[in-house]
Amino acid sequence: MKENAPATGVWPPAATPFHADLSIDFERYIAHCKSLLADGAHGLAVLGTTSEANSLDLGERESVLEKLIASGIAAEQLLPGTGAASIGDAVRLTRHAVARGVRGVLLLPPFYYKGVSEDGLFAFVSEVIGRVGQTSLQIYLYNFPQMTGIAWPPSLIGHLIKSFPKTIVGLKDSSGDVAYMNRLLESFPGFAVFPSSEALLLAAMKKSAAGCISATANTQVGAIRALYDGWQGAKAEELSRAASAVRLLMQKYPLIAAVKAVLAEHARAPDWARVRPPLDPLSPAQRKELAAELSKLEAGATA
Amino acid sequence: MKENAPATGVWPPAATPFHADLSIDFERYIAHCKSLLADGAHGLAVLGTTSEANSLDLGERESVLEKLIASGIAAEQLLPGTGAASIGDAVRLTRHAVARGVRGVLLLPPFYYKGVSEDGLFAFVSEVIGRVGQTSLQIYLYNFPQMTGIAWPPSLIGHLIKSFPKTIVGLKDSSGDVAYMNRLLESFPGFAVFPSSEALLLAAMKKSAAGCISATANTQVGAIRALYDGWQGAKAEELSRAASAVRLLMQKYPLIAAVKAVLAEHARAPDWARVRPPLDPLSPAQRKELAAELSKLEAGATA
Repeated sequence: MKENAPATGVWPPAATPFHADLSIDFERYIAHCKSLLADGAHGLAVLGTTSEANSLDLGERESVLEKLIASGIAAEQLLPGTGAASIGDAVRLTRHAVARGVRGVLLLPPFYYKGVSEDGLFAFVSEVIGRVGQTSLQIYLYNFPQMTGIAWPPSLIGHLIKSFPKTIVGLKDSSGDVAYMNRLLESFPGFAVFPSSEALLLAAMKKSAAGCISATANTQVGAIRALYDGWQGAKAEELSRAASAVRLLMQKYPLIAAVKAVLAEHARAPDWARVRPPLDPLSPAQRKELAAELSKLEAGATA
Repeated sequence: MKENAPATGVWPPAATPFHADLSIDFERYIAHCKSLLADGAHGLAVLGTTSEANSLDLGERESVLEKLIASGIAAEQLLPGTGAASIGDAVRLTRHAVARGVRGVLLLPPFYYKGVSEDGLFAFVSEVIGRVGQTSLQIYLYNFPQMTGIAWPPSLIGHLIKSFPKTIVGLKDSSGDVAYMNRLLESFPGFAVFPSSEALLLAAMKKSAAGCISATANTQVGAIRALYDGWQGAKAEELSRAASAVRLLMQKYPLIAAVKAVLAEHARAPDWARVRPPLDPLSPAQRKELAAELSKLEAGATA
């Protein structure tokens, strides 16, 4: 039964590096994914917002998964995003991922139409589950209303859990809405809730969160893993303060660009900073400022 | 040169009928498209919001275009929507449409990320144009911030027109924002602006709009064509009042569902009312109320 338990722990949403022609730099990508695992990630929540998955075409999204698995990363360490605005595209991506044996998938709500009803969202998810038609499918709802315009309503989540108890197993919450997160943690025991920021992780763990899927796990996975492992220990507050300080600094900037700028800095590889349109990279001034502020934090931490 | 002039006139965004299994009912669809043309449409703005294009998968979007052309509808009478959140998917759809000889394409901004910059949007459009690589490509920007979270900023439109004068030829405005529409009409002479509602058509024509691409042209294309042809005539106000009354009534309801409900009523074909999730059809009570209100309007018009 253990393999059917929902995922727990630290699952970085691995950023996707691009060549100058905007194609995916798979060599750098796979090396990054392996180093995240080596540095303490329990698995990888690939192909989400931080990964710029919705800026990849459908074929690229499939090939990312295939190349990761071909590189030797275990499929059960992968939670890919397979959401799309249409049932058909979401089914294609989800089927592909399930066929390759992934641990589960992150599913965005259909994100074109706005003001849609709970019935409409239920029908969408229900069609996707039915058409994928695999009992091994485990879905983590992906909640990011700042991008999609749609928050998964708790009443709908309850309805989905009840209707598909073996399939709807968790939720990644990128909303930053603490009241929403707490409500889910309190309402649905055993439902795997992942806050998207290490700044919320300690409080969330005290309410039985599953772990953390955070953009900034791309740059400080070790610190987040230490906090995840030590949240009940004597140093929990200290670990939380350190990880949160980095997160709160980085989220003052456009977050995806900031994550990639720091990866570029760490690897001394300016190419890492590249994003696909419509996103912009940080300006040189922003990069310099962010690097300086991060150095100050690190100096403070070791002082 | 005439074939390179931007489109003008009434271009209904043809609704897409579905079978009970949610697959496209191509027979009904093609008959509907042909009847719109027979009833006065200058062409068809297929695969937009009213068509539920973003609820179709990429392959379906291509096959809609292929089947329309195979049915005998001239490619130059088609303005398909080819927007997508990723450059790659938008390029695939746009290339496919251009290769089939369409009059132009409607391009949504990349609609996943929010708060993106003008530079980011410019880079997106510029990449799409460069990668499609066809001088015959004519793009109508598709402005629907209520769905995408992004309005095409007038300063960016100016920049795009200047950079790609033969390619960026017009804009369909579904925002309903009259000040925005007027600003475009005044700022960019010769740029083909299409308001999305016949209730704005008369005022827009006085400011040299190109015509009208309206959801409710699915149900009253003849009335809109009469207004378009007669906007400088003695009956212009009367034609505008009649067409606007129907539009204003229908937009009190969820508009796509209302359009399909009226098509179902007209054709005595309940299947027409079906929508794909996440949209919902009108409730039986709403359908009844809408039909009754429309009958009242028609009785008033002929009294």
